[in-house]
Amino acid sequence: MPISYFECSHCGRKFQPNQVTYTCPVCSGNLDSHFSWEEDPTEVDQKSILESRESSLWRYAPLLAVPDPGFQASPLHRVGNTPVYQPENLRQKLGLRSLYVKDESPNPSASFKDRASAIVISRAIEAGIDTTIAASTGNAGAAMACMAASVGKRAIILAPKSAPPAKIAQLLTFGAEVILVDGSYDDAFDLSIEASNEFSWYNRNTGYNPYTVEGKKTAGLEIWEQVLRFLPSPQDINIFIPVGDGNILSGVAKGFHDLLALGWIEKLPRIIGVQAEGSAAISNAFFAKSDTIEAVHAQTLADSISVDLPRDGLRALKRVRQSEGFYLTVSDQEILKAIPQLGSAGLFVEPAAATAYAGLVKALESGQIDPAIPALVLATGSGLKDIKAAMQAVPTARIIEPKLSKLKEILHD
Amino acid sequence: MPISYFECSHCGRKFQPNQVTYTCPVCSGNLDSHFSWEEDPTEVDQKSILESRESSLWRYAPLLAVPDPGFQASPLHRVGNTPVYQPENLRQKLGLRSLYVKDESPNPSASFKDRASAIVISRAIEAGIDTTIAASTGNAGAAMACMAASVGKRAIILAPKSAPPAKIAQLLTFGAEVILVDGSYDDAFDLSIEASNEFSWYNRNTGYNPYTVEGKKTAGLEIWEQVLRFLPSPQDINIFIPVGDGNILSGVAKGFHDLLALGWIEKLPRIIGVQAEGSAAISNAFFAKSDTIEAVHAQTLADSISVDLPRDGLRALKRVRQSEGFYLTVSDQEILKAIPQLGSAGLFVEPAAATAYAGLVKALESGQIDPAIPALVLATGSGLKDIKAAMQAVPTARIIEPKLSKLKEILHD
Repeated sequence: MPISYFECSHCGRKFQPNQVTYTCPVCSGNLDSHFSWEEDPTEVDQKSILESRESSLWRYAPLLAVPDPGFQASPLHRVGNTPVYQPENLRQKLGLRSLYVKDESPNPSASFKDRASAIVISRAIEAGIDTTIAASTGNAGAAMACMAASVGKRAIILAPKSAPPAKIAQLLTFGAEVILVDGSYDDAFDLSIEASNEFSWYNRNTGYNPYTVEGKKTAGLEIWEQVLRFLPSPQDINIFIPVGDGNILSGVAKGFHDLLALGWIEKLPRIIGVQAEGSAAISNAFFAKSDTIEAVHAQTLADSISVDLPRDGLRALKRVRQSEGFYLTVSDQEILKAIPQLGSAGLFVEPAAATAYAGLVKALESGQIDPAIPALVLATGSGLKDIKAAMQAVPTARIIEPKLSKLKEILHD
Repeated sequence: MPISYFECSHCGRKFQPNQVTYTCPVCSGNLDSHFSWEEDPTEVDQKSILESRESSLWRYAPLLAVPDPGFQASPLHRVGNTPVYQPENLRQKLGLRSLYVKDESPNPSASFKDRASAIVISRAIEAGIDTTIAASTGNAGAAMACMAASVGKRAIILAPKSAPPAKIAQLLTFGAEVILVDGSYDDAFDLSIEASNEFSWYNRNTGYNPYTVEGKKTAGLEIWEQVLRFLPSPQDINIFIPVGDGNILSGVAKGFHDLLALGWIEKLPRIIGVQAEGSAAISNAFFAKSDTIEAVHAQTLADSISVDLPRDGLRALKRVRQSEGFYLTVSDQEILKAIPQLGSAGLFVEPAAATAYAGLVKALESGQIDPAIPALVLATGSGLKDIKAAMQAVPTARIIEPKLSKLKEILHD
């Protein structure tokens, strides 16, 4: 369904769809999209969504900001509808009444970011633009490269030269034009904006392009379909989301706001934003009860949430407050510890995803949440994205001669 | 449905289910499982399978060798039902009438092997055995570790010390007891059998445990459900499968044999086994029209199909002949070239998967297949499993200063 109007999440000004493309022209705030069904929820038929056999985010087509562009037999049409697991061993260990983990690794490029890229690339198709550009430390770029390739479009990715080679190799394989920038993520971000203005390319940047949130909100819609609607009181849940630039959190929250507008939930579920201690710009503002996000010099092994200046920080701050949630930070050691914990339930996650779980552990230990309230952890990407972190998190395997006697020795150690 | 009897794929002897556990006690051949519905196909209701909303291999429960063990909210229940893509750019480039790629990377541990492990672990549960052991170069071990973790069972993995560290890290993260063997895959294989006999553990080894094929056959069932049943003549298709020890091919073929027994297809689809030139033991026998598989000293970058002595070679040879298919080999250079080709369609695959695509390219170039006949490539695992290969397959990204002028220069190069 087309967007009826945009509203600045910061200053509240409203704009017609044709008046703006990226951020608020007045205050540079991130834009929220609004739809006619917020005025008249009967426009959307919940039953037909729930009965849909479409196994991707396109099952929510009536709630999306872009029309389904087709390409049914491509990765673009296989994003989303990711599984929610209930790891019994972890639930018991944590003493929780219910534990859910939403695993984003089955997405085509193995991370949550495919949701944003599917919608952004679909928007580029709708707008008739062939080239999309983005600054990315990895997952967002890989997702954009994957989605663009899957529909035959050109993708240009600017990444800081410090980005993990594994992530760069993935996006080169997708045929994207990858240019490493001798500078920070923020330098790459700024250059991508200059370039998209200069060449009339479409810019996918997170915390800049309003359609990323419209893709990411589908995770919120799925959490409703898979979990919330089966809870005795749908809002009584603590949802743990890893936070870097804030856009994933804003996206999931946008899904909940849409559901509230539709009357499908009565209250917003509580969102807990989890940041790495070394990349805590938004948490710092939350703790200081401030409305100003100050840049940090980010340093954490969880590279996909390592951000100096969060581009969607203010909105992510506001969304947590609106949900009566909170922020917390975890150390890299706590993040590393969480990797094999999720592994013990059959989930192999990247450090950013482990961050959310580490946040849950900490919130329970500190008594910040009630174990009788269900908890959900958003596991944003596959551990295969960052094997180095996994290798730091587990002991090395022992080597033996191929003899039964040697095997017995080692097993009795 | 329980197995009615086992039949040796080599000597044809039949055994009651309680008479055998692994291979044929007489000739050591691999065992095929048979079911009562082969005698009476009306026992299985096709319609209820096609209408099932179960989004995993458990949708085929009536055709499986083990009962669904439950664990609905675990990775064990999310294996299979992988997407089939139709990459239009590759179809055109190859001049094919139809091209299908079945992508196994969304499986919980990101490879095809989860199919076998889901069924083997379910069999261990059924048999009341808590510990499962396997020899694995990586994917099979990771799959077993993942499936075992997801239901709280113990997994012991023996791997040659040459296995890629990334794959080892994945299975350590799943909490498996990993022991590296100072020897070859074959040494690890033999030791695992000694150990499972000694400790009464369940042995998952490929080409040894008859339940692996019963898991892998689900890919054949899905190919039928997703592709074959929509073709004008379902058998007119060329199916390209990467071959190492032969068990994936035997598994997919077993699915087709089951479908034939059920009368759901009238003829077996043609299977083309693709091996790496440096690991071509089964192809060698095929070219020599021999029934003897001779070990090679395997050397290929496609590590998951790098096998000295294929443990399911004879059956994989027979299955290709029965299907009126053939074997072919491709070089490591051809495999590397295939990685970015599949990437250009949004598919990031490991070298073994690229091998199957390289085989398709070669078969078309050499005129061994008719481009008017649809082709399907089985893409067995995620490229994130072996980033080193991807890095060899793509150029390195260029580094620039973060300035628009520099970006313009590089784009005009």
